[in-house]
Parts: sequence; C-alpha cells; structure tokens
Amino acid sequence: MVLFDRPLERASSDCFSAYGGAVDQRSEGAIHAARAGAVAALVRSMTMRLDDFPHTGSMRYSPDVERIPAAAISTRAADELAARLARGESVRLALQLGCRWHPDATSHNVIGELRGSELPDEIVVVGGHLDAWDVGQGAHDDGAGCVHALEAVRLIRARGLRPRRTIRVVFFMNEENGTRGAAGYFDAHRGELERHVLALESDAGGFTPRGFSTDAGPEALAALEEIAALLEPASAASVRPGWGGVDIAPLARAGVPLVGFRPDDERYFDVHHSDRDVLEAVHPRELALGAGAIAGLLYVVADLPDALPRNPGDAR
Amino acid sequence: MVLFDRPLERASSDCFSAYGGAVDQRSEGAIHAARAGAVAALVRSMTMRLDDFPHTGSMRYSPDVERIPAAAISTRAADELAARLARGESVRLALQLGCRWHPDATSHNVIGELRGSELPDEIVVVGGHLDAWDVGQGAHDDGAGCVHALEAVRLIRARGLRPRRTIRVVFFMNEENGTRGAAGYFDAHRGELERHVLALESDAGGFTPRGFSTDAGPEALAALEEIAALLEPASAASVRPGWGGVDIAPLARAGVPLVGFRPDDERYFDVHHSDRDVLEAVHPRELALGAGAIAGLLYVVADLPDALPRNPGDAR
Repeated sequence: MVLFDRPLERASSDCFSAYGGAVDQRSEGAIHAARAGAVAALVRSMTMRLDDFPHTGSMRYSPDVERIPAAAISTRAADELAARLARGESVRLALQLGCRWHPDATSHNVIGELRGSELPDEIVVVGGHLDAWDVGQGAHDDGAGCVHALEAVRLIRARGLRPRRTIRVVFFMNEENGTRGAAGYFDAHRGELERHVLALESDAGGFTPRGFSTDAGPEALAALEEIAALLEPASAASVRPGWGGVDIAPLARAGVPLVGFRPDDERYFDVHHSDRDVLEAVHPRELALGAGAIAGLLYVVADLPDALPRNPGDAR
Repeated sequence: MVLFDRPLERASSDCFSAYGGAVDQRSEGAIHAARAGAVAALVRSMTMRLDDFPHTGSMRYSPDVERIPAAAISTRAADELAARLARGESVRLALQLGCRWHPDATSHNVIGELRGSELPDEIVVVGGHLDAWDVGQGAHDDGAGCVHALEAVRLIRARGLRPRRTIRVVFFMNEENGTRGAAGYFDAHRGELERHVLALESDAGGFTPRGFSTDAGPEALAALEEIAALLEPASAASVRPGWGGVDIAPLARAGVPLVGFRPDDERYFDVHHSDRDVLEAVHPRELALGAGAIAGLLYVVADLPDALPRNPGDAR
C-alpha cells in the first residue's frame, strides 16, 4: 500500500494512522535532508516491530534540491545508531545502494468477470494489486488482496450463485510505484463508469476481518451497514466511513462508492514492504474469513433489486 | 483452557465452538474405544492447523471400562494414518507413552491487590491461570491471561488512579487438571463473596481484543455494554452474553457476574496445548491491547458510584 498525500490518515485503524503520520520521514526525508546539506538520508523503518529487517517503500525528490542517496534501516539498527550518537560517539557510516531507476516497461492489469444474470452491464469491481516491492514476496501486500477478490468470486460460484450484476475482479498493476494500473483502468473503462455500482479494494493484509470502510453517502452507507450485519460470522459486521483504496480511488471521480476491506492490522506493519512479507506470514483461516466476508458483501450488492445510491462524483 | 461439560459451546466464537464440538473425542475417546474392545485410543489433535505437533489435553476414564492407553497425534500424522487405512493397507502402530499419574502436591493461587480508595472491602477479581500443560510454555494458555491481569492493574497504577473498590489479581492454580485453584479460591473467600462485584477471566489467548462475554443479567449487561463502548480504541467495544471462565465459574454460585475476555481466536488452536504455545507466538502489541481493554473495563467497574447489579446466584 502506498501513501500519496497521506490518504491513510482517513483510515480508522491505529496502526495505519501511526504509519500515515510517520511515513513522510521516508517519502520526503531525502528532500529535507538535502536542504539541510546532508550527503545522504537514512530513515528508521516504518514498523512497530523491533527487528533486523529494513522496510522499503516509495520516496521522492524535489526538483529544487540535490537527489541524495536515501535508505531505510531496520529498527534495531536505527536504535543502535541513535544510541551511539546520543553517547556522543563519532559514527562513520558507509552506504552501498544497488537500486536504480529503470525505464518504463509495459505491464497489465489482470481482469476476470462473473457475468451478471440480469444486469450484466452493471458492474461491481473487487480487487487488489498484483505488483509488490522487491523485498519479500508481497504475500500480505497485496497477494492477500488478490486472493480475497478471486476467492470471493469462486465462493459465490461454488454456491451455484449468479448475482444480477457483473462482479469484475481486477488485479491492478503498479500500485506501489505510481498507480498506473489504477489510472489505466479508469481510462480504459471511462465509458462504463456510470454503470459501476461499487468498487471494493483489499489492500490492508490478509488478517482476520474487522469490517469495511467506505466513502459512500449516508443512504448507501446505511445499506452497506445492513448488508455487513449479515457478515457477523466472518467478524466483518462493521462499516465505517473512511478510505476505500489507492487503486479504486480514481473511480470516486465518477461517483462510484468505494469500499475498503478492513482486517485486523496489528501485524501488518511487522511484514509490510520487508523480507518478512512471505506466504508463511499469512494465516489460512484468517485469509479465508476475509474472502468469505468480501464474498458476502459483493454478492448482496451485486444482487440488489435497485443499485446502491451513487456518490455525487466530480465534474470531469 | 479445559472443557468440562463443554462450557465453551456457549462461547460465541467459531473456533471455540468447533473445539467444544470435537473435544469429546479426546476427553472421552478412550472410554468409547475400550467399550468397543480397543487396546488403545488415538485422537487427531484438536487444532485447525495441519502440522506435525500433537496437542495434548485432559481426558478421562469411566469406572466401568478398562483404562486403555490414549494419545493425541498430530493432524498430519492422523491424515496419513487415515489415508493408509482408507487405502486398505495393513497398519501396525506402536505406542510408547511416558505419561503417569503423579500423587497430588500442594500448590497455590497467587494473589495481589490494588486496594480500593473508598470501598476496599468490595472486590473486583481479575485473573488467568498459572499452570500450563507440560508441552510448550503455556504462553497463550494462560501466560497471556496472567499478564493481562497484572498489566491491567499496572496500567491503572501508572496513571495514578485508584478506584473506589479493590481490584484483586488472582493467578489461579491447577486450571488444566481439576480447577482446584478455582475451588480453593471459592472456599477460602466464601465469607466475602457477597462483596465480589465482578470477576473477569482472560483464558482465550493474548490476541487482538474483540470484546467480552458475560453471564450478567440484563441490567448489568447494559452497564457493561456502556463501559465497553469506551474501549473502541482497544478494539474491545463488544459485550455478548456468554461464558466467563473456568476459574471464576464457581463464583457464579454466589451471584457474582462473570466476564470473559474475548480476543481474536483464529490462531489460538494453532498453539493450544502444544509445543507451539511459546512466547514467540505472542504478539506484543496484541497482548498490550488486551491489557489495555481489561484495564479500562476493570477501572470503570471498580470505580462506579453504585456497584453493578448482581446475578441471583444459587442457594448454597
């Protein structure tokens, strides 16, 4: 999950709020350090966990200052460095970075559909993002989100159900490094965005469901609350006003109500953007509960007699 | 956590319900197997996880049948055994058990108090159990519960708070093998049980809070719901009718309302009663949230102007 302009501060969870409140040290640290005359910038990894794993993530430069080297170091390394400096020791630090900026290459969103039985042109989008940082495996960020979306539709099919409207699974590409897949989806589907009735994103890990957050207006919110109440067995009965997701965010301009899947997040930043984000960190039951919760919400929304009320949307 | 007479079926969580619905295969398997002429009884470990760790736990014999050897085997071993039998293979199984029934030995509950400022004779009990199975370390079952109780009172003290009533931390002994500590507490404190205003037990692991369950009557339940609503930041805002805890269960006879701390339980039976129940399986933030939630509930209950309404209680 990337943070541009701190959208996650709108999320209700404490861990995401903490991350959202601190991540500018990584994303803008090199700018401020260069302004202060630094030759390089280090940042303490964005995690609550004390260990030896650095957590990577996006950062940016500003045209008006030098592009100095920047790196994240592990929390233990940062503590050690800070302690030495606090003791007044003279610290020499050598930085060897292998990262480069590669030229753009073509990549693709991956899309599949369960066509609606009565209103196949009305679309409920559900997705996660297909790309991940080059450390770890991206199992929680955002393999879990992709599996949630795919498995939710499989569960609906396995029950022999086919809702009135089409459910479209979208694995968005390039979320971590520019959200080109999100922009590409918006552009490619511009002609049918008025018939997108909801978009749901899972990009907060594969942990036990807590519920959903949404930017839906009061009437749609009330309907979503009623639907989510059915999801008590999957621990997902709560719907709160809040953030939808980075990849579906452009759809808000077309008035599409956005919903973010909200799992327990206490362990998310333990693994996020690090070598620890591997399959072993995903708990099968927790992942399955998330898919079940999402399946329930998707099915009911896609099968409603009348579509959920849309948001106003921006003039385009 | 032991299961006598399946009290956990009353718990609202799916994992505990699943455990409660299956555990008679372990607790009574040897009785039924002996009746059918078996020379020994094996049980598939009581866990949703597929791995190589057997999960132990209490079992019993019946006076009218032979006391045959009984053992739990890992889920993978059970699957392998079942597959071989299903293929019609002739299976020879050698059982070597080192377990014995030792004579009783004296042990103790461990008790500490934060004395109330105005009504020190009125008592709110909070506790977990000090004993654990001989596999693993008992980190979740029930080290976490003991730490919850102790840390909750430390948090209250650290804030410079002293509620009107006494908060009594009780680490109960012998929960896993007879609940003698629970019975001992009841007997030793019989004279003051009328002044016990609430008892809270944490014995479901150190995971992220989900809320509480209680046997309190409608009026006390409503008050507890109001108090728990304050605990939304610790994800513990929900109170459901349900189970309190094995160690505090005897106090119900004296009309003391019981409250069980209810954490996320998806991972609990991964580790429960096995070599995997070790400190590394406890997540520091999740544990701390539980202590915070319990501290909040305890403090408000102990500081209420009027004590919570009691339950009717049984004639003694």
